[in-house]
Parts: sequence; structure tokens; C-alpha cells
Amino acid sequence: MGRPETAVSEPVPRDRGRVIVEAVTPEVDAGRFPIKRVVGEVVEVEADVFTDGHEHVAAALWVRAPGDPRTREIPMDPRVNDRFGASFVPESEGRWAYTVVGWLDHYATWRDGTRRKVEAGQDVAVDLRIGARLVGDAAERAGGGDALALQDASSALAAGDVGPLTDDALGAIVARWADREPIARHSRTLEVVVDRAIARCSAWYEFFPRSTGPEPGRHGTFADAAGRLPDVAAMGFDVVYLPPIHPIGVTYRKGRNNVTEAGPDDVGSPWGIGAAEGGHTEIHPALGTLADFVAFREAAEGLGLEVALDLAIQCTPDHPWVREHPQWFRHRPDGTIQYAENPPKRYQDIYPIDFDTDDWEALWDELLAVVLTWVERGVRIFRVDNPHTKPFHFWEWLISAVKAIDPGVLFLAEAFTRPKVMHRLAKLGFTWSYTYFTWRQTASELREYFTELTTPPLVDAFRPSAWPNTPDILTEQLQHGGRAVFVQRLVLAATLSANYGIYGPAFELCENRAVRPGSEEYLDSEKYQLRRWDLDAPHSLRELITLVNQIRHAHPALRLDRSLRFHATDNDELLCYSKTSPDGDDVVLVVVNVDPHHRQSGWIQLDLDRLGVAPDHRFDVHDLLGGARYAWQGTSAFVELDPHVTPAHVFAIGRPSRSERDFEAFA
Amino acid sequence: MGRPETAVSEPVPRDRGRVIVEAVTPEVDAGRFPIKRVVGEVVEVEADVFTDGHEHVAAALWVRAPGDPRTREIPMDPRVNDRFGASFVPESEGRWAYTVVGWLDHYATWRDGTRRKVEAGQDVAVDLRIGARLVGDAAERAGGGDALALQDASSALAAGDVGPLTDDALGAIVARWADREPIARHSRTLEVVVDRAIARCSAWYEFFPRSTGPEPGRHGTFADAAGRLPDVAAMGFDVVYLPPIHPIGVTYRKGRNNVTEAGPDDVGSPWGIGAAEGGHTEIHPALGTLADFVAFREAAEGLGLEVALDLAIQCTPDHPWVREHPQWFRHRPDGTIQYAENPPKRYQDIYPIDFDTDDWEALWDELLAVVLTWVERGVRIFRVDNPHTKPFHFWEWLISAVKAIDPGVLFLAEAFTRPKVMHRLAKLGFTWSYTYFTWRQTASELREYFTELTTPPLVDAFRPSAWPNTPDILTEQLQHGGRAVFVQRLVLAATLSANYGIYGPAFELCENRAVRPGSEEYLDSEKYQLRRWDLDAPHSLRELITLVNQIRHAHPALRLDRSLRFHATDNDELLCYSKTSPDGDDVVLVVVNVDPHHRQSGWIQLDLDRLGVAPDHRFDVHDLLGGARYAWQGTSAFVELDPHVTPAHVFAIGRPSRSERDFEAFA
Repeated sequence: MGRPETAVSEPVPRDRGRVIVEAVTPEVDAGRFPIKRVVGEVVEVEADVFTDGHEHVAAALWVRAPGDPRTREIPMDPRVNDRFGASFVPESEGRWAYTVVGWLDHYATWRDGTRRKVEAGQDVAVDLRIGARLVGDAAERAGGGDALALQDASSALAAGDVGPLTDDALGAIVARWADREPIARHSRTLEVVVDRAIARCSAWYEFFPRSTGPEPGRHGTFADAAGRLPDVAAMGFDVVYLPPIHPIGVTYRKGRNNVTEAGPDDVGSPWGIGAAEGGHTEIHPALGTLADFVAFREAAEGLGLEVALDLAIQCTPDHPWVREHPQWFRHRPDGTIQYAENPPKRYQDIYPIDFDTDDWEALWDELLAVVLTWVERGVRIFRVDNPHTKPFHFWEWLISAVKAIDPGVLFLAEAFTRPKVMHRLAKLGFTWSYTYFTWRQTASELREYFTELTTPPLVDAFRPSAWPNTPDILTEQLQHGGRAVFVQRLVLAATLSANYGIYGPAFELCENRAVRPGSEEYLDSEKYQLRRWDLDAPHSLRELITLVNQIRHAHPALRLDRSLRFHATDNDELLCYSKTSPDGDDVVLVVVNVDPHHRQSGWIQLDLDRLGVAPDHRFDVHDLLGGARYAWQGTSAFVELDPHVTPAHVFAIGRPSRSERDFEAFA
Repeated sequence: MGRPETAVSEPVPRDRGRVIVEAVTPEVDAGRFPIKRVVGEVVEVEADVFTDGHEHVAAALWVRAPGDPRTREIPMDPRVNDRFGASFVPESEGRWAYTVVGWLDHYATWRDGTRRKVEAGQDVAVDLRIGARLVGDAAERAGGGDALALQDASSALAAGDVGPLTDDALGAIVARWADREPIARHSRTLEVVVDRAIARCSAWYEFFPRSTGPEPGRHGTFADAAGRLPDVAAMGFDVVYLPPIHPIGVTYRKGRNNVTEAGPDDVGSPWGIGAAEGGHTEIHPALGTLADFVAFREAAEGLGLEVALDLAIQCTPDHPWVREHPQWFRHRPDGTIQYAENPPKRYQDIYPIDFDTDDWEALWDELLAVVLTWVERGVRIFRVDNPHTKPFHFWEWLISAVKAIDPGVLFLAEAFTRPKVMHRLAKLGFTWSYTYFTWRQTASELREYFTELTTPPLVDAFRPSAWPNTPDILTEQLQHGGRAVFVQRLVLAATLSANYGIYGPAFELCENRAVRPGSEEYLDSEKYQLRRWDLDAPHSLRELITLVNQIRHAHPALRLDRSLRFHATDNDELLCYSKTSPDGDDVVLVVVNVDPHHRQSGWIQLDLDRLGVAPDHRFDVHDLLGGARYAWQGTSAFVELDPHVTPAHVFAIGRPSRSERDFEAFA
């Protein structure tokens, strides 16, 4: 029968392939963005791979290291329901590529069917001839010893020998030389940005170098600030983060407590960048010279601390760019430059950059140059101020360009803004993101939020950095909860999130005075004045902070986010969760009383499987904060926490050192 | 400051756009596949649209009808958290295209900020000049009356008039001529396959024309089968589906109850296609001529019934293609053609088509020609036998090619196979899919499965067709549950799923005899022999079937799947769910006792919001099966169902005819 006369259009092109590869994970926004991992962290890849009919399929993960033209192939194992899985461990920083391929496994299909016929006592003479041809074809594609082995097997099959049917080694050789055409390939090449290890786990300490002067009222220098470093290192932090260190503008400079008129001695906000002495690549003379900064950085590194700089893309009216590149600012019809505003609020001390400028490409180049200048000076972590007020595409381009030169340069997004905006910045390349942790305070809020953060899609693209306070944010809870709430928030930040930080002296000393009721601004904020901190005050949290960071260092379970699991409690004021190290050997269980005022008790319902404990086994729990040890058994455990003593347990879960039989022997 | 010496590579290209469009829904597999709707069914589109900073954004849905080069633009409304939404209603069949665009709304940003300054009593002289320029620029782009209105407004603003700030009509004109460059567009153009209405809701009746002979042992003809149609129509079905009507092979023909050797009078399986008289485009002589078939189809259509044909791509050894196109079959080294097998099982009466043939393009053309031949003969619904044993790409191409000629041609996939395979066939173009309903029997199984089917992503791509039985499947449950289980399964199929079907006479008459214990095959299956059915037997379900189909016709709520919602019950044997019509006016609540043996009672916990009932309002429920009426109030209701009387309530929910006050007046 011929085709009918009707002219047939074919909206879908013909494709001869019979294998389907789909639903590849991990994948962020259909591959639009890379996932995130660190060197040595496993990437578990899964995909649905299947064909029509009953033929066997095989699948492989293809992986390419940055700069390496070769593709590594890793066989994928069949799992349940047409899902295949394999993993790889990136051993270097940079953008790795991966995808999944699948093909018909003709030999496996033939071998399986023929074996079943043999088992059923059927005549397989013709089947063996088919197999001989399959193996012979593979021999033609093969080289060296494989070719010989395949030729031998083909001859044996042709001669009616069923031996090759049970020869797994032969099966592997045939697989190596199998005809895979037409191979099916996932429609997208996926990427993983592989960072150095600190991206996965870090504890940050923020402080103002200028507040480290040797006497009241004297502006601290880098040399003074270096004196603070041994203490910060001793507390177990990994990163010291400094507010901007550039010359501070004088025009419309803000005074203490953010008053509009600065007094003659007022030091101004470090975020008011740019003065006669220079802009984003210069150093505030009162802090010292570039050499002083380098010495500070080296001192930090000598103590195992990395220095993070602030990157705030904004200018005072005194910034050199205002003269040199006036086209980068918005001009009003009256000839003035548009200052920052959020009507009716006005910020006349700040000129925002106009990213809509026609000279945008030169602007982008210059901003990239700023970052690269500091990279050349040894800075490899940037805390980016308000990235959400600059174009997303700019950041995606900038971060990729910097990381193409040095993949070890890392960026923390300070985007306290709407969720979609926050998530987009993470997806496009920011290493870490500040989070809503700061305002998530009830057990249910924390449970819901951290569940979202530690499950796909966010877990693959968004690395939370939990901060209980910042120089901009003294929450109502910290203002009114007393010391207990500082302890509680520290434990939560440091154990819920592998990356966390504190605005240091203020947090250590439980500073809780707001500039006025209803405000989250600190009274006498260091943003606008020098502060002297009595770091040896008896109420300092230094010892607790040190202990918490020691626990983080000793327990790999706490050094990643992905394994977080919440356990049910029967008291809404108790939050219970566990984390497990990738090898399963280290398990930490945390219980926090989130009520800073009252003793709370209740039963927790343990997911023993997540804790790696058999239902009928006794197991030891050791409170790393308080030192107590308990032997627990079963899914229920009773806890009681007094916020005025310590509002949390951080338990290491011990495997039973003896079998249950031993216990019985002693009973 | 210049750029450093380092040569900078830019792995991510520069992009000046500032607006982001992402997370567009509905979208199947990142736009790889179209969604499904019917003519007149709303398509609700949502997307995240946002920008950096604080500027206003605007978003629009772009829609293109099939064959229409023009793009319609529908403004999208802002919803919560940067999400925008709009909808369109496709008015014709075919592949519609849609996508989402977004842009900076400079005028809205300016207007909002300036109004806030005015309200704060600030000087806005310069702002009004900025506005004058914005509106003036729009005037230059505008034509006709709009240009004049914009020029006037621009002049007024330039003269210091704040009036335009509150002029919404002016705002709409400016929006019409706004500068949208660079506009952001979702990276993918999405498609919706729009089918005729029957795709959304249909009741199918399957029967074997050859079993309608006027006397025992006489092969029925189309003329005989036409006599059955008034009864099928009277029961309220929409589609009569016939097993294959082609010449049946004689070589290796199977006998009664699928025995290997057929007797001389055995009629063979209709799925054994191909004989001396012809193949897939011919008609079995015992059924009549092509003219007889056309007369049958026309008789059906005269009764409001549509005829669905079976499309089974397989051949007997007697099929003309075996001679004419031997290259379409797999040849074994001994020269024989490979018959179907699932080792060690052998099906020597069937030659599967070898889709790996080098002559695959001619094969595809021929198979398309088969379908188009039947389309030309007036068939527009095909029930495709085992599509999962033919290549996915073939079906995607075939269905698209057929629908390019006639978008009203519909395909039902009989793929009782693994979930990923079943879902892929739906996504690539099958109108409907047989489902696991057949074996989902407990309340929790049904709840879980139909929740999956009626939520994204499946709800947009997979149209379930629920069948309690087929000629291949007499479930254990039907074998042993008695009449009650037939009633229960009918109600479930017809109310859980807008599309359902029965293998008619066997179901009507509660046929429950399997060929042997443990088998799902019918005893004396019509697949291999003629059967006479006593359709007037007293135990026939005809009246109940008629009633159920009447309820479906009267209640638009039951004629779609998307609104399905389960309500909690405190008895695991009771399944409770509701459906609501798109306008919200029709609400049906169903309660089924899934235990065919015992009376079950319990409390159902109603989601009143889904039922459209205020928490404090009394509402009427009218049992459409049993006729009883009740007045309910609140979220709890008690039900008791005896499977031997009737195992289900199908309630129409009535809005209260009087206000609560009226009730109080009577109290």
C-alpha cells in the first residue's frame, strides 16, 4: 500500500534512536545553572534510562574535568524502576561537566534470553549462531588481546559451545567493544562548580579593624587589628571578615547613630566608599598602607585564618569614579547626580552606580578589575554587599570571569531580600548566601526553612551561611532574650549550618541595646563610630564559642548540610535534628530549647535509621556541650533543657561498643 | 584604574538585560513536551518575574494559535513573592504556543516614587521633569491619539503639573508605548496540544463485533454489531472500541483458551493480524466489507457514539508485509523470521516488526499510511496495542504527523508497563493512557495513585483512562469479590477518572471466571472464540451503568480530573473524594466502601473549603445513586455503606438554599 496523496508534514523530526535518557539529577533549572560541590565531595548522579520492548539497556555517566578535553566514562548501575546511578568525585577546583548516555545492550539481551532457553531445555543452535555474529562484530571493532579473545569466543559459539554464555569476563570485553549506535544522550551537558573545601564548611568572625585602637578614641590600624587575630583563631574561626577598608567619603557623611550631620571627629561609615585618597582599590589611610594590609593578611594566614573583604559597589560623591566616569551615574535634568533613595527616604551620601549606562561594558571591566586587584593582593573571599541591587547577569559574568582565573575565589551574597532573588543569586554563582536564619526563631520555622535549604533543588545550588547577628541586624529576639538567646542562636547557627558567622565582639559580649525601640540597628553602632569592647568581661561567650567551634572541627557530621534530618518532638519549644558524616561513622544529634525564658522538657522521637542505630540496640549519647553521657535504647528519649543553664544538647552518638549479646551476658 | 595584565576569559557571556523570567508553569520536562488541554479549557500560566533593585517590573503572557503568525499578548498580574499569572483559553484544536516575557516598568517606578515624595511633602520639581521626559519618549514611539495624549501629559509634567501622577488612563497609555528593551523572555517556547472535548471526558465500551451473531456459533458481522449500538448508547457511553477488525492469520493460529493448536472452526485472535485477504488496511471478510464498516461507524455516530479502532503493529506469518517487505522483520541465521518471544516463552503466531531495520523510514511511512487510511475512512480514535514495544520516537513522530493533518485524531496508549515508560508515552503525544487503576484496590493505593495523576507534572501531560477490566485482565479482585466489587469498581473508575472504560459484556454481566487459578485471563476468552452474552440476564449491571453515566453527563464536576481532592476518613476501607467544576458551581462528593465483603462505617473529615461551603453553613447532600438527601454541617460526617446494598455514595453538594438566619428563625 502506498502513502495517501495527502502531503504529510512532520512537525517532529524522525529520530532512529530507541533509548531514552531523562530526569537526570542533580540538575538545577533544567541545567541552566551549575550545581555546587567541593573538591573531594561525591557527586551522585541518577537518570531514568529505558527503551521500548524488553531489550537490556546500559548507561554511563560522562565526566569531564576543567581544562581536560578527555571524557571519563563511569558505568551506571541499574536501580529501581528504570533508574540508573553512578557517582564521581571531582579532585580539582573549577567547572566540571557531566551528562548521562544510554544504549541498547544487545549482548546482554541475547545472553539473558539464550540462557533462559538453555535452562528451559530449548534448542539454542540458531541462538548461538546469532551470538557468534554479535561477538564477531565486537571482535572487528576491538584491538589487541580483546580482539583475539572475542574471535575465540565467536568461534566457540559458532561451533555450538554454550560456555561463553556464563563467561562474565567475556561479557565485560564484549561490553567494551559493543555497538552503541545510535547512542542516546541527555539533552544537556550539566556542570558542577567545584570549590575548595572551605566553601562547604566555615566559621566567620566579623570585626571592625578601626575599633582595635590601643586607647579610647584612637582609630585602630591593621597593626592593631592584627593583635586581635590570635584570639579569633583560638576561638576556632576560619575566616575573619572586615567591613570595607577603603577611603571614606566626607560629603554628606553620616554621624554617630546615623545622624545626618557628622561632627568633625566622626569617622563615617566604611560603606561610604571613595574619597580624595581613592576608591575601591585604595586603603583608608587611617588603617595603614597596602603593605600594612598585606602584613595583616599574612598574620591571619599564619594563624590559619583567611581574610574576607567586603565588596560594596557604590560610591560617595567624593569617589574618583564620579569625576573620571560621570557616565556611570544617573544624571538628573537639573545636572545633579542621582543619589540613592527609597522614596521618600534619601541617602545623599551614596551615589548608586547606573548599570543602565551606555558605557556598561567599561563599567563591568572596571568592576572586574577591582576584584582582580584584590585577588592579586591575596584576597580570595569576598562578602558582597547588597548584590541584589546590581544586575543578575553582571554577577554571573563577573563571578565566572574571576573563577576562570582563580577558581578558589569565593563570594558570599549579602542579599537579605525576597526568596526568588536570593535563590537566583546563589544559582548564578555566589558560593554562599546569607539566609533568613536570622529571623527564623521558632522550632517549626527553623524546621521548615532548613528542610527547604537541605533538599533539592536548593541543596544543590544554595549554600546557606547562618548569621545570628550582623552590624545591620540586632534582632528583637536578641534584644530581649538575654544571654540564653545568644547561646541558643550560636548553637543553632553552628550546628544547623556548616557555614555560619557572627558579628564578633557584639555577639561575644551579648550586646543587645538597639538604637531605639522597634529598630534592629545597634545603639552606638560601629558602622558610624569607633567602639571599645571589653573582650575579657565575665559575661563573654568566648569559652562557649571556642567549645562549639571545637565540636565542629572534631565532628565531620557538622561540617556539611546535606545530611540534616529533623526528628519529631512532642514539645513545640524543642527542636531536634541530626547530621551524619558521608562515611556514616560520625553522627551528631542536637536538641535545642528555643524558648530562652523557660525550662522545657519533652519526648523526642528518634529516626534510628538516620542515626545508624538498630532498633533493638542500646547506644551511647555523649553531650559534647555539657559532658554528660547516657545510654539510650529505642525511638523515644526524654530531654529537659533549662535555658539559664544551657539551652541545648549536642550529642555525639556512639555505636554500641559491645553486642547486645554482651549486654545480655551481664544482665 | 586599568584592567590588570591577566588575560580575562569570560565563560559566561555579557548580557545587559536586568529582568529575570523563570519557573514558568505549566511546563513538562523543561518544555521538552507539550502540555495537554481541550478546546475551551483554561491554561493558567505563572512565572517568577523580577529584577535587581527596587524597580517595578511588568510581565506578559505571549500566546500563538496554530497556524496563526500573530502573537497575542496578555498582561500578567503580580501575585505573591515575585510570581505573576495570567491565563488563556485556546479556542481551536492543534498545537498552541506560549511563553512569558518581562521588562522594567520605568514609568510605574517613577510614578510610584514621585507620588510617595509628594505625599511626604518633598520637592518634586526635578522628578516631574524626569517624568516629562519618560512620557515624551513614549509619545515619540506612539501613533495617533495616543501620541497627542502623551505629548499633552509630557508638557503638563514639564510645567510642574502633578495631575498625571494620579491619571490611571494615562498610565495605561504610557504602558502601551513603553520602552521594553532589553525585554526578558523565558528561554523556551512552550506548547499545549489542544484536543477536542472528548479527550477530557469519555466513557468507553469495548466489545467484539464477531460475538454479536444472531445465533450460537455464527460469526457476527458489522451489521449484527450495529444492532448492539442502541443499547450501548442508551447506557450513556461515548465511544465504542472494537478489537482489530482485520483478516486473521492461520499459521500457528491459537485455539480456544489460547491453546497452541487451533481447531478447524477456531476463529483466532483478532490481534493476529494479516492473512491472504490482507493486512492492516483490510477488513476481515467474516465481519463484512469496508462499506459494512462505514455503515456501522455511521450508525454509531447517528447514536452519538464514536468508533475507536485498535492499532496493533504486529503481523502473523501470513501478513502481506512479510512477503512484500521482508526487510522489516528480523531474520535469523537459519533463514527463518524471528517470531515474538519472551524467553523461554514463544509466540510463533506473531512476527514483531523490526524497527531497527535499515529500511526504517519506509516502514514509518507505511505505518503512518495505515493510520491515515483509517482516518480517511472516518476513524478518529485509535486504541494502540502495546505501544511500549515500539520506539518512543516513532510514536512521537507518527502522532504529530497525524495531528498535523487532523488535530482531532486521538490515541489511547495501552501500555501496561513500568511507570517511566507509561509516562513517556503520554508526554510524547498519546491523548490518553491506560493506568494502574486496574490493580489499585485499597483506599490508600487509590488515594496515592490518583493524587500523583492529578497533580503536576503528570496532570499536565498524562490523561488517565481507568478500566476495571479488559479482555486481557480479569483481576483477582473481580474474580473473588462478587457483584459488589463490580459495582464498586465501576463507581470508582467513572468518578475518579473523567475518562474510563469497560470491556463491556463481560463487565455488565459480572463475568468472573478465570481460565485457571492465579491467571488474569478469562475462561473461554472472546480473544480466541465467539461468545454469546445473555445481556438481559437479571444480574446485569446495565441499569447501574446507565445511572452512573447519566450522573457523569449531568455533573460537569465529574467531567475533568484536575479538581480531584481526597478527604480524610477514619476507616481505611472508606475512600472519600470530591471534584468541582471549573466555575465552582457543581461539586460532587464520593464515598466508596472498598471492602466488597463487609459493611463499613466511619467519619469523614471534609475539606469544606474545597466543597465551597462556609464552615458555619448547613449544606444539602443528595445521593445521586441512592436518592437520599441529608443536611450536613461542619467538617465531620458519618457514613455507613453495605457493599451488598450499594458500596458507594455519589453526593451532589447543594449550596444552602436559605441563610443560617433562616434556619435559626425556624429553630
